[in-house]
Amino acid sequence: MNLHIDALTRTLGPAVPRRLAHLTPLPLSAVQLDPASLLGGWQELNAAATIPHCVQNVERTGVIANFRRLDEAGQETPEGKFRGFWFADSDLYKTLEAIGWEIGRTGTDQWAAMLTDVAGLLERVQLPDGYLNTYVQGTPGEVPFDRPEFTHELYCAGHLMQAAVALHRGSGDERFLTIARRMADLVVRSFGEDGRPIIDGHPEVETALIELYRETGEEAYLRAAELQVERRGHGSLEAGRFGPQYLQDHLPVREATEAIGHSVRQLYLAAGVTDLYLENGDQTLLDAMEQLWESAFGTKMYITGGHGSRHRDEAYGDPYELPPDRAYAETCASIAALQWCWRMLLATGRARYAEEMERALLNAIAASMTHTGTAFFYSNPLQLRNGHDGSSEDAPSERLPWYDCACCPPNLARLFASLHGYAATSDASGVQLHLLTPGTFTAGSMKVVVETGYPWDGDVLVTVSGQGELAVRVPAWAEGATVDVAGARVLAEPTPGSYLRVSCEDGATVRLTLPMTPRLVRADERVDAVRGCVAVERGPLVYCVEQVDLPDGVLVEQLRLDPSASITEEHAADDITPVRLRLSAVIRPLGSALYEHYEPASATGAPITVTAIPYHAWANRGPAAMRVWLPLA
Amino acid sequence: MNLHIDALTRTLGPAVPRRLAHLTPLPLSAVQLDPASLLGGWQELNAAATIPHCVQNVERTGVIANFRRLDEAGQETPEGKFRGFWFADSDLYKTLEAIGWEIGRTGTDQWAAMLTDVAGLLERVQLPDGYLNTYVQGTPGEVPFDRPEFTHELYCAGHLMQAAVALHRGSGDERFLTIARRMADLVVRSFGEDGRPIIDGHPEVETALIELYRETGEEAYLRAAELQVERRGHGSLEAGRFGPQYLQDHLPVREATEAIGHSVRQLYLAAGVTDLYLENGDQTLLDAMEQLWESAFGTKMYITGGHGSRHRDEAYGDPYELPPDRAYAETCASIAALQWCWRMLLATGRARYAEEMERALLNAIAASMTHTGTAFFYSNPLQLRNGHDGSSEDAPSERLPWYDCACCPPNLARLFASLHGYAATSDASGVQLHLLTPGTFTAGSMKVVVETGYPWDGDVLVTVSGQGELAVRVPAWAEGATVDVAGARVLAEPTPGSYLRVSCEDGATVRLTLPMTPRLVRADERVDAVRGCVAVERGPLVYCVEQVDLPDGVLVEQLRLDPSASITEEHAADDITPVRLRLSAVIRPLGSALYEHYEPASATGAPITVTAIPYHAWANRGPAAMRVWLPLA
Repeated sequence: MNLHIDALTRTLGPAVPRRLAHLTPLPLSAVQLDPASLLGGWQELNAAATIPHCVQNVERTGVIANFRRLDEAGQETPEGKFRGFWFADSDLYKTLEAIGWEIGRTGTDQWAAMLTDVAGLLERVQLPDGYLNTYVQGTPGEVPFDRPEFTHELYCAGHLMQAAVALHRGSGDERFLTIARRMADLVVRSFGEDGRPIIDGHPEVETALIELYRETGEEAYLRAAELQVERRGHGSLEAGRFGPQYLQDHLPVREATEAIGHSVRQLYLAAGVTDLYLENGDQTLLDAMEQLWESAFGTKMYITGGHGSRHRDEAYGDPYELPPDRAYAETCASIAALQWCWRMLLATGRARYAEEMERALLNAIAASMTHTGTAFFYSNPLQLRNGHDGSSEDAPSERLPWYDCACCPPNLARLFASLHGYAATSDASGVQLHLLTPGTFTAGSMKVVVETGYPWDGDVLVTVSGQGELAVRVPAWAEGATVDVAGARVLAEPTPGSYLRVSCEDGATVRLTLPMTPRLVRADERVDAVRGCVAVERGPLVYCVEQVDLPDGVLVEQLRLDPSASITEEHAADDITPVRLRLSAVIRPLGSALYEHYEPASATGAPITVTAIPYHAWANRGPAAMRVWLPLA
Repeated sequence: MNLHIDALTRTLGPAVPRRLAHLTPLPLSAVQLDPASLLGGWQELNAAATIPHCVQNVERTGVIANFRRLDEAGQETPEGKFRGFWFADSDLYKTLEAIGWEIGRTGTDQWAAMLTDVAGLLERVQLPDGYLNTYVQGTPGEVPFDRPEFTHELYCAGHLMQAAVALHRGSGDERFLTIARRMADLVVRSFGEDGRPIIDGHPEVETALIELYRETGEEAYLRAAELQVERRGHGSLEAGRFGPQYLQDHLPVREATEAIGHSVRQLYLAAGVTDLYLENGDQTLLDAMEQLWESAFGTKMYITGGHGSRHRDEAYGDPYELPPDRAYAETCASIAALQWCWRMLLATGRARYAEEMERALLNAIAASMTHTGTAFFYSNPLQLRNGHDGSSEDAPSERLPWYDCACCPPNLARLFASLHGYAATSDASGVQLHLLTPGTFTAGSMKVVVETGYPWDGDVLVTVSGQGELAVRVPAWAEGATVDVAGARVLAEPTPGSYLRVSCEDGATVRLTLPMTPRLVRADERVDAVRGCVAVERGPLVYCVEQVDLPDGVLVEQLRLDPSASITEEHAADDITPVRLRLSAVIRPLGSALYEHYEPASATGAPITVTAIPYHAWANRGPAAMRVWLPLA
């Protein structure tokens, strides 16, 4: 039996390798997430609220107007200056990508008119040679590809390609694919083997060219991506004040095995390099990516799955430099991390990559959006003090409806619209479940139905029709997981951090039970910023304590957790925080001197029991101080 | 007896109020610091190395060339573009200020020819209306005072005025004073009561105008300074991405009682407001400054006297947001803090202001320069990890000879050249010693000779000629200080954090003995970033442990200090680290997981004794990881 699917099926999801994958993604049409579940619910919310919000905002903030004023045929708003950041085109493209996946998911036609308008606009604004970038075209003095460290032209082109691929996969729409191919063909002609050795200051086009290659079969796009990857790190970009690492041009990719510089650029590049490995099989690329992954995920990642601790240059810090209060942890970085992990998972089949996808998804990414789907965090701190100045966009006290630099909201929209593509894979032997979410997953003759309240409870019931091997990821924290099967034979017991493997007959049921007891987690002692603290986790969710849950007169800064006390659960009929935790702590009196003689601490303090809520639900009840890492009594 | 000195004496030091001071600075000619002492040695080093280095670098980096190319008479380099940052003029002016103080201190004529050249250059480049700014004059499209949030024109003008005042006080040089007054007169004419309500995005001119008023007696300059202060905080500046607080335009000064925004701008403004109080006696200004001071020094200052924790916008963070690794703690901020404290001290006579001057001077400021006087830190972190990426100018691993933004080196030069002006004051009753440095201090008929090895030892012997009251600051850490007098009567016993007061006959001797036992200091528990850590101090000096002092195979990150063990001293014949400390610690094995299940810590680890050196001496033996805050075992 071979369950490999046709790599050119129209309903493919994001990042489906043509060649080398250890695991093969399921077609989007082969997956339905339960809309009443957390992940499935996000997809519904995305369709109902987030995508329309993005459509509205790319109109409101002038992103579409930037095209219109270049549209001599349209002449709607020929006057006025370019609006927004020079990479504003990408906000539209990411929104289009979200729409593409959404059409594929539900067949909706609600954006048909908009797509026709925008396709026409893009066709008319695109130059005869295929060039398309409203900042460069609309700004006197700018010359195409003249300042690649700055202008983000290939970055925007990459998002155009990804939108085109999504729309083509989702609805068969050829219009955007034609536009994107004209731009890609220009890249191939201009920056090929014998062309200018141009790379972009912001990686993104690498993955996009490979996706375009996957969708069209055009090998020239793969070769163009390869050149982009191989040319990186030779100092061809003019470094600015943040150094060559900001542009990911500090070292060739095989030598750049420490995660540094702008975190989103680093992670998009890593996804592109991994995509290249998936198509060309160059093991030296995968080796480098595995080392880079250890650096990023083993020494520089927040417990929430956030990446990039520095605000100044949106960058990774030194190893273990992970301040919870000044965490930058850009939403886009966690999305990029998930995309990279997905590709590493496809390349290797190792559970740790799926584990980190889940961490980012259920914590940092989930936290970046309100439950209304229309307000967002750009940075995702793990601590906000009483007295925080939230006046700055880079560290607001609450999610904002939109940002001057609006990369994150439409990035969330495109992720959520394609989320079902990241949940499961198949290989020659059967189906692998990576995200434990209720839904239906089909691969060839094998159909897998998952029923679970996860991540709120730990019972995962899988019913299999057809015959084949089922693999279910057992999270690394799930010590004591058990399995109970009927009509099936366990090939590999449920071991934390690997896959439960079961050989199933038609009609088999597999019940995996994960222990959901809340637990305390500590960081490596080199993470100075959280010394003496623990985080509280339950299942895959990181919890936090919010000021709004404390009695008057008690500040979140005064709490000291009693690590020996048991943690109790409170189950509530509440979609946002269905499981809250109750923690035993003491209230420490506040000191009066910033610095004073050291005296051994007395563990005094009035006892208090405090509520913790999932981190991803914070700041949904107005601005409030918050802590993930709680000092111990 | 009235020991008040003539406020217009030519040898005045920096910031000598004409009107309201509680204490009056001693004229520079009335103070000689012992050149063999730490502070006196810095003055010698400054004269021999730092000032010449600055002179060389303002030439090398094009700062003077920016003037020359506008000098039609000279025609030396009429071609070329403006070089450096738009505020580069100020680098020259601060260097001139240093030279002015240095001439006053030693009478040196080594820069006479340079001063003549530069004075001629400035005279020729200055426009007929008095305007002088090489960035605006030399950049097509720039219009004077058109973009005050950006161009730093009044900031540069302020440094010109301060240079002119220093040169006038130091040598009677009228040339720069004339140039500066022409610019100041333009400010008075243009931005007076009925003029444009312009303020500068970077405060500095407030203090400068008041100093110019003090030097010339021209009341219009004081009034112009008052308008600058009163116009601030009404949103007249166009806020950029860092918000109005970056420009110190977020609130009127009487309401802006939390230290926020760009820390150097905040502190220069505070110094200017305090100067204004010293001249106009408006108590509401002093009240606001005292509240602001509590915010800055009570919740946002590093133990080294560094200010401003955020790299992104060079800004103060939230209260207690004081990461040691990503401390920005700009050298200029500590200099500005010292200047502000000096003015608060003059206004109130309170010891806490002198205490904080000393903390900044002997720790953050002292650390910012090598013992060669020719390499500098811009930011002054309290921790540098093994594995630190020191490739960025904002967080290098070693002091650099110069910076693209070169504000700090000449700021150090002007401070050190005038340092003797900050050591002591007089009032109607006698002399007050604020910095415990060996030297000679004269006020009227009273002459005070201080002999001490401080800050390395705690014996301070003061011999008084003439009659009067002697006040000697007893540092806040000096619990157990004792005094022994001859020919004198103790009016106030030595109490930490206040002044020992002694009524002296001619020939009296006063021996103050300060306990120099090393001590452990902890931070307020809200300083999350150093939870579970202590700093080691001895006298006024903060100590640190540097990787270079550890045996091979032991990382500074592995040390856990035993707080119950006594600390021993090592005295060495070494000018840089004459007193080292030996600390008992254990070596903690490194963990392997970034996050893992919490287990109560076992206090295991091999014992080790490690050397600590004064923080200000770190990174003088090559790049090395370093920690001020040491975790406890």
